[in-house]
Amino acid sequence: MSNDTENAVSSALFTDFYELTMAQGYWKNHMDAPAVFDMFFRRNPFSGGFSVFAGLETLLDYVTSFRFRDEDIEYLRSLKSFDNAFLDYLKDFHFTGDMYAMQEGSVIFPNEPIVRIHANLIEAQILEGLVLNTINFQSLIATKTARVWLASKKGGIMEFGLRRAQGYDGAMSATRAAYIGGAAGTSNTLAGLEYKIPVMGTMAHSWIMSFPTELEAFKAYAEIYPDKAIFLIDTYDTLNSGIINAIKVGAKLVEKGYNFGVRLDSGDIQYLTAEVRKRLDAAGFPQATIAVSNELTEQIIETLVLKGAPINSWGVGTHMVTGGSEASFTGVYKLAARNNPEGGDMIPAMKFSDNPEKTTNPGIKNVYRLFDADGMAKADILALEGEKVEAGKEARYYHPSVDYRQFSFKAARVEPLLFKVLEKGERTQPKPDPVIALRKARETLVKQLEYLDPTYKRILNPHIYKVSITDTLKELKLKFISERIK
Amino acid sequence: MSNDTENAVSSALFTDFYELTMAQGYWKNHMDAPAVFDMFFRRNPFSGGFSVFAGLETLLDYVTSFRFRDEDIEYLRSLKSFDNAFLDYLKDFHFTGDMYAMQEGSVIFPNEPIVRIHANLIEAQILEGLVLNTINFQSLIATKTARVWLASKKGGIMEFGLRRAQGYDGAMSATRAAYIGGAAGTSNTLAGLEYKIPVMGTMAHSWIMSFPTELEAFKAYAEIYPDKAIFLIDTYDTLNSGIINAIKVGAKLVEKGYNFGVRLDSGDIQYLTAEVRKRLDAAGFPQATIAVSNELTEQIIETLVLKGAPINSWGVGTHMVTGGSEASFTGVYKLAARNNPEGGDMIPAMKFSDNPEKTTNPGIKNVYRLFDADGMAKADILALEGEKVEAGKEARYYHPSVDYRQFSFKAARVEPLLFKVLEKGERTQPKPDPVIALRKARETLVKQLEYLDPTYKRILNPHIYKVSITDTLKELKLKFISERIK
Repeated sequence: MSNDTENAVSSALFTDFYELTMAQGYWKNHMDAPAVFDMFFRRNPFSGGFSVFAGLETLLDYVTSFRFRDEDIEYLRSLKSFDNAFLDYLKDFHFTGDMYAMQEGSVIFPNEPIVRIHANLIEAQILEGLVLNTINFQSLIATKTARVWLASKKGGIMEFGLRRAQGYDGAMSATRAAYIGGAAGTSNTLAGLEYKIPVMGTMAHSWIMSFPTELEAFKAYAEIYPDKAIFLIDTYDTLNSGIINAIKVGAKLVEKGYNFGVRLDSGDIQYLTAEVRKRLDAAGFPQATIAVSNELTEQIIETLVLKGAPINSWGVGTHMVTGGSEASFTGVYKLAARNNPEGGDMIPAMKFSDNPEKTTNPGIKNVYRLFDADGMAKADILALEGEKVEAGKEARYYHPSVDYRQFSFKAARVEPLLFKVLEKGERTQPKPDPVIALRKARETLVKQLEYLDPTYKRILNPHIYKVSITDTLKELKLKFISERIK
Repeated sequence: MSNDTENAVSSALFTDFYELTMAQGYWKNHMDAPAVFDMFFRRNPFSGGFSVFAGLETLLDYVTSFRFRDEDIEYLRSLKSFDNAFLDYLKDFHFTGDMYAMQEGSVIFPNEPIVRIHANLIEAQILEGLVLNTINFQSLIATKTARVWLASKKGGIMEFGLRRAQGYDGAMSATRAAYIGGAAGTSNTLAGLEYKIPVMGTMAHSWIMSFPTELEAFKAYAEIYPDKAIFLIDTYDTLNSGIINAIKVGAKLVEKGYNFGVRLDSGDIQYLTAEVRKRLDAAGFPQATIAVSNELTEQIIETLVLKGAPINSWGVGTHMVTGGSEASFTGVYKLAARNNPEGGDMIPAMKFSDNPEKTTNPGIKNVYRLFDADGMAKADILALEGEKVEAGKEARYYHPSVDYRQFSFKAARVEPLLFKVLEKGERTQPKPDPVIALRKARETLVKQLEYLDPTYKRILNPHIYKVSITDTLKELKLKFISERIK
């Protein structure tokens, strides 16, 4: 294992094979010319009202070290599909283009470019899989965690997913993304080291079962960890054994000036936490804490919170680190503009589809967020490069695929969302400390969630946030469509 | 990136933090004594009738190199929860126990031990997360792929999941597991190098869009790759443009002695493939192939196959490499027996639960597969170590949780399923070439699927395969329960 997982991918073979066969095609046809690709996504996962952009720092590390090693070149040669001259070209391959991206931790919405790549066609294509793999996964998990965190009313979320995560990096990257999304800590000790995320844990059923009795197991734990005793009380019988023994041992801790807590990992959480709270209070320990776990989702958590279940912290694993019912993010990577062989501006490109929502927005685009006078976000606007979207000026914006929907708005403030992060293949800012970058992403999310109306953050059936286009972009799109019909 | 992903994990910090706090507790209480843990799973994913065991070779590589590095120890010291003497003990930590496992690629069923670990309590606990993470994920994907492959009537499955996989290893491990499950090849070029899995791919929409016209794009491709021309025909209009241009360019290839094919990535697959087949046949190219992709699942594939859609190969991505609607495998790791401080045999351990199906099977157990005279698998039997399950002998077997269900059977043949793979921390067999091990796992699955009745392999609502227990194990279980009620 590399000590620094952020440098885990350095072989440019981590790409779909067709990128390489196409790359050779472009190379042979002298089409290795400037192109612009957008990464955007099609819909918010989990039927939610927003998503969270995560994985950028990981991606920048990957992209800046992406190379074909000698053994990679020899492997490609062995496939007998590539000319030696093209393989020589690949030997020197590295990304020399520009990349624009939103700030990591940003709240993002469907159809807006979250990463925009300006590079020659070959470099841009070879990078596709890496960009999508990295951003799709971390954004999925950051989004899921933000939902879990909001459902808990910004409570204490412990990420416990290592054992159910999708492989080694499925755990490491998920822990990183969950921290951006609002998790307070993780059980993944290696991620604790790498990202300085607080590590957390209680005890397992096997601890209890390794002692002759539950009481002895609790006593032994309290002796060693008097300052962090969270007793797991459901191994034998929560109400007739677990809570009784926890109170016995906890009382001694309180005498010595410590607090204690209990964890429930099975049974009906609402019923049991209410009963356990009563017992703890009756025994004189209103300060004792209750943690719960067991296949929690944002829906279960929200219901428990709304019903007033007396829960202090939540251990969330499987669903948070895999997405659960939705295991992938719908990010795609599409050509937005191509070289003009006759010189001059690049030529906008648009992908058609029988499904109007799958028709792409052509051209080089920026994204602006409009705010009202109260500082709340009202809409995101896609505009063509060079267009101005300004505060204090009434303007009309259009739905990107439905003809008759439009609105007029005078923004009190406008924020551009895309920033240049790579120029000629190099970071525009010095590489930040990975721990600081991670904390900054988390702070970005916290800040942006504040200016998002609660109706967009609703877990079930949320309000749809507007992502609209300028009239110029609308005209360009219509021109493409009418030229096609001719 | 490590060249050999199988050695990717070597820090023993890749474990849940509570394993380490519990480990210190065991160590301080002199409880570092022999224990036996089972890994088993609770239910087949995807409402299926079987699962596939995968990830063993990866796990063996991880386990045999699992160590605390100096920086790991220093990190733990910084947390101020661990004594120096215990940290000194961790410095020398490595797995010194025995591991039993099924053959990789085996068909497996709920509640049977698929991995059994005999080790001192500390080693066994620290390994828990690693065992579960590795086996859960690869088994999920091998199972999903086997379903996809069976649904296609053992057709050509191309694994195209890199861009939607859960991170770097989510792609690499998924490609490995998908190959075990029946995928013919992958788009993941790095996995092609590492595992010698055939790499495959066609062309992207961006290829077509990078040329002035679709026809020029097809021509350019055919020129470079005359022997592997699969034209993507849905960029502009499948029936009014794509298939027409594909036939034009394909005809030239056929003249030159090559074949060609087309790929569809959107629209109604049944309708479009039927139309496209007609056009190809009418043009005199019955040998031209049709590939399809676009969010395929085993259910969609099965329906298309049963409806007779003329499809030669299937590009499957998102759902296959993430599990899709089910993103985790239900594998758990439970104490089965603990040390007898008075010497003698180990003491069986059983975890109770309010849910009878979550009550574990106590004791050190083996698994036997019973076959009938036709060579078909009839049931798997859990028996206590030392018990014999023999062919040619009528015996009675019991449902593991429902009292009244039992059956009597005289097996024509009996196969033990668990084999010792590690002894005192070392492989019992020399480490195989990873490529050969992978092919062997795939062959094991192919062979075992043959002896499984089709009703267990049904995609929807399959027949439930029997996993039963011997009378001795049943007695032991009842003893636990009656002693608890007393």
